[in-house]
Amino acid sequence: MVKVELICVGNEILIGKTLNTNAHWLAKRVTSLGLKVNRITTVADDLEEISSAINEALSRNPRFIITTGGLGPTFDDKTLEGIAKALNLKLEVNDEALKMIEEKYAQYVKEGRMEKAELTPHRVKMATLPVGAKPLPNPVGTAPGVLINYENVTVIALPGVPSEMKAIFDESVVPVLRKEAGKVIFYEAGMEVLGIVESEIAPLIDKVMHDNPYVYIKSHPKGEEKTSRIELHFSTTSEDVETAKKRVGRAIIQISDMIKKKGGKIRPIKTFG
Amino acid sequence: MVKVELICVGNEILIGKTLNTNAHWLAKRVTSLGLKVNRITTVADDLEEISSAINEALSRNPRFIITTGGLGPTFDDKTLEGIAKALNLKLEVNDEALKMIEEKYAQYVKEGRMEKAELTPHRVKMATLPVGAKPLPNPVGTAPGVLINYENVTVIALPGVPSEMKAIFDESVVPVLRKEAGKVIFYEAGMEVLGIVESEIAPLIDKVMHDNPYVYIKSHPKGEEKTSRIELHFSTTSEDVETAKKRVGRAIIQISDMIKKKGGKIRPIKTFG
Repeated sequence: MVKVELICVGNEILIGKTLNTNAHWLAKRVTSLGLKVNRITTVADDLEEISSAINEALSRNPRFIITTGGLGPTFDDKTLEGIAKALNLKLEVNDEALKMIEEKYAQYVKEGRMEKAELTPHRVKMATLPVGAKPLPNPVGTAPGVLINYENVTVIALPGVPSEMKAIFDESVVPVLRKEAGKVIFYEAGMEVLGIVESEIAPLIDKVMHDNPYVYIKSHPKGEEKTSRIELHFSTTSEDVETAKKRVGRAIIQISDMIKKKGGKIRPIKTFG
Repeated sequence: MVKVELICVGNEILIGKTLNTNAHWLAKRVTSLGLKVNRITTVADDLEEISSAINEALSRNPRFIITTGGLGPTFDDKTLEGIAKALNLKLEVNDEALKMIEEKYAQYVKEGRMEKAELTPHRVKMATLPVGAKPLPNPVGTAPGVLINYENVTVIALPGVPSEMKAIFDESVVPVLRKEAGKVIFYEAGMEVLGIVESEIAPLIDKVMHDNPYVYIKSHPKGEEKTSRIELHFSTTSEDVETAKKRVGRAIIQISDMIKKKGGKIRPIKTFG
């Protein structure tokens, strides 16, 4: 599967003020498009931290690196500078990005929400991109997203504001990822197991995973082990849904029989798939 | 400040099924104890991924590495193996951990929720720790937490089930962190700015940060830039609350005046502090 790394930039995540819902949303979207998120890294609004996180990600050879946060007009929006540093690219004012931003401010003035639309240094900053970058239109905010093709990796920088991040992703990033993903789909199904503890299920999972090499089973104890409520998630990737369903179905039947023999109860649950 | 790295282990986070509330909770707790979370990394339930994440964290010289997830009895609980590999330590059955687990299962049998308490290989697995590790009692589940002092770093492994993670953290990890943190406290206050856009506030922040070197100001546009609602968070660290409050107060007064002159409105908001 095509490897993707997510890098989230923001002190507010590291001090535990902001719950990282951006990473969660992106991970789900990327997975359901048939690509694989290998790692999620959160770093501070700090040039060195951002550029080393990018460099470390590059060394793991993902096909895509997607960043969130740090694209705005303030001094601590340092993501593009960090990417430029890591890729050894210069920053320059990008004409296409500048035009996007000028049009936004002209529109704000027209709507009477601002008096002047002039390009202050802080506004020009949002159009200052690594050389060769492509700005991605921001349908709901000002700072454009950014796409950079660099050797075998595509680096995509998205804003940290969730509504802007999602809008740019859906409009400009989905087509790029879909093209690379090919036809692989991710399929998952789940069940809840009651009445036996996780350490009793563990050997059953081992056996079923062994007999069903394409199926991955993960157990999720819910609450405390002593309540004996465990979710099992069965997942596989395949080029067609029918094959995927068949594989997962076979594993579910096998483990269900084994769980019942141990005195456990099962019931189906809705999962991700 | 004392540096901490968080490493979260779990495929369910990488496929976007589970929102990483553990990292959020830990980041907040660690910060309010006066330590600094430098990085949060999420990796798959994979031995190589876990051990390289630990190795990379070690190379950044944090005082603490706290992991979540991967301590249970199933085949894909690989965190301790990954830590052992990274630290070049052998794994061995830890007598103290084994005793904790035996007592848990004896209790489950007593409560009539299980028939037999014997130590199956999957249960012994939870007591198989890196040599020299200290098990941390799990007040609400079975798998103990683990603490390892290795050269200048302390590695602490916590379960992924939030109730267990929190209980072990509060009971056994807080005293360790508090001792290292010294007296440093983190203080924060916030305000909401209405009626001017982020790119207009950016130069004001630059000025106030310059005049108040110990205060960090971060702007958070809420929703879309055009709605002109921006939160400003002012933070500092200090050995006493009074100094911290005075510093942040001075910065707030200065920027409030500047915002009002620009035609903006402000109102105080509750933040983290």
